[in-house]
Amino acid sequence: MDQERRDHLQTLERGLDVIAAFSGRGPLLTLSEIANVTGLSKPIVRRVMLTLERLGYARATASRFALTPKVLALGYAYLSSVRLTDVARPLMEELTDQLGVGTSLAALDGPDVVYVDRVQRGRVTSINLAVGTRLPAHATSMGHVLLAYAAPSDVEAVLATSSLEALTEWTITDPAALRARLALVRERGWDAVDQELELGRRSAAAPIFDSEGRVIAALALSCGTLQCPMERLTGEILPPLRETARTISKQLGAGVREERR
Amino acid sequence: MDQERRDHLQTLERGLDVIAAFSGRGPLLTLSEIANVTGLSKPIVRRVMLTLERLGYARATASRFALTPKVLALGYAYLSSVRLTDVARPLMEELTDQLGVGTSLAALDGPDVVYVDRVQRGRVTSINLAVGTRLPAHATSMGHVLLAYAAPSDVEAVLATSSLEALTEWTITDPAALRARLALVRERGWDAVDQELELGRRSAAAPIFDSEGRVIAALALSCGTLQCPMERLTGEILPPLRETARTISKQLGAGVREERR
Repeated sequence: MDQERRDHLQTLERGLDVIAAFSGRGPLLTLSEIANVTGLSKPIVRRVMLTLERLGYARATASRFALTPKVLALGYAYLSSVRLTDVARPLMEELTDQLGVGTSLAALDGPDVVYVDRVQRGRVTSINLAVGTRLPAHATSMGHVLLAYAAPSDVEAVLATSSLEALTEWTITDPAALRARLALVRERGWDAVDQELELGRRSAAAPIFDSEGRVIAALALSCGTLQCPMERLTGEILPPLRETARTISKQLGAGVREERR
Repeated sequence: MDQERRDHLQTLERGLDVIAAFSGRGPLLTLSEIANVTGLSKPIVRRVMLTLERLGYARATASRFALTPKVLALGYAYLSSVRLTDVARPLMEELTDQLGVGTSLAALDGPDVVYVDRVQRGRVTSINLAVGTRLPAHATSMGHVLLAYAAPSDVEAVLATSSLEALTEWTITDPAALRARLALVRERGWDAVDQELELGRRSAAAPIFDSEGRVIAALALSCGTLQCPMERLTGEILPPLRETARTISKQLGAGVREERR
């Protein structure tokens, strides 16, 4: 424990917290604003920002700081290390061409899913689903899949901190109901939501496994309720979606997993 | 200078270097491999990785480490702070629908352009251009645009370290020729490349400005040589591309810039 504490680099933790503090804020933040968000003192925030500026990850104006595009390269260090988007993108294009519905790839970050990539054809949904967009995990099929395969402690942390806000009358807002749904997702290996995020939209999702059998992303198809009656979603859309998720997983080095049924 | 050195947080620099070391490598790296790439000692790399693991940015196996999807959220802290993909994606969709060619958005990272987002329709190019993909800036229209508006010191750093590799017989490999091209791009506000990256492909690019007049990304259209004779690229494709780049810039808060001509 002492050894663990000695090995912990607090300065690194603070620096990463400061970068994360810009998420959904800014682009320009004052030292006070960053200090408020992170709970760090202004002198510490100042040293972090000056260091980030010297390294090219931030820039300063008269009294405020902004991140630079170089910060993106940190996120892409992960993407290129696992070859996730390289492998997934062409298969996502095929899936969207075949079925005529939008395909999304997302990872879990705390209580949110974050869009890693997205392919769509023709005109768009009412929610603008660009790369980097966050949606609440409890209300999305990708979120259910990612939480179903997450560490139990991560799921408990989400349940402890998220208000499980009702986004429609169909959103799961009860922790016990969400736990039951996650158990079902683990059992059958996929999820489908019917207007739990947004009235008029349905989606289905399946897990992407890495070479060690960890779920690192979820692949989803989403469509309007007119275009996708539930029978079409589970009967016609789900099978090729699951097949594509398995193909991506295999190309990432995952062992061929036996279906539960 | 002494003050500056005192304010510099070396541990933060080392941590960010270690994350960046996974780019294009891995997913699993040993401490020795990370030490080799970063030039840091193994004990320091070990403390960085243990810290990243405790913070959820990395995970350890028996003898190796990998980044986790949480690292993506760092990159997206930048994207959401500038609202870049949120603003650009719907306009990129429109542009691709209107012209029938792929639209790309990229930022500069050292000598490379890194794809931030990409929209395409139907079948795909020989290069797989997923989010996070890197291409050499000296051989792409987006790279020329980003370098043209970069700080002169950044351009000199690229010229000093990049070999300006010839990817086709049309790639600019001479530093003086590249400098001349960048001056032209600054003068006219756009670039077009004819098979400088890949035989059979052409592209055009225009800058995206932020609220302070800095170029934070380049927007590009690319197409095959059969689909896009140079006359179509500069006559039919370039005007709506520039118009869309201006619209995105305005939505990001950039002042309405006067055209040079």
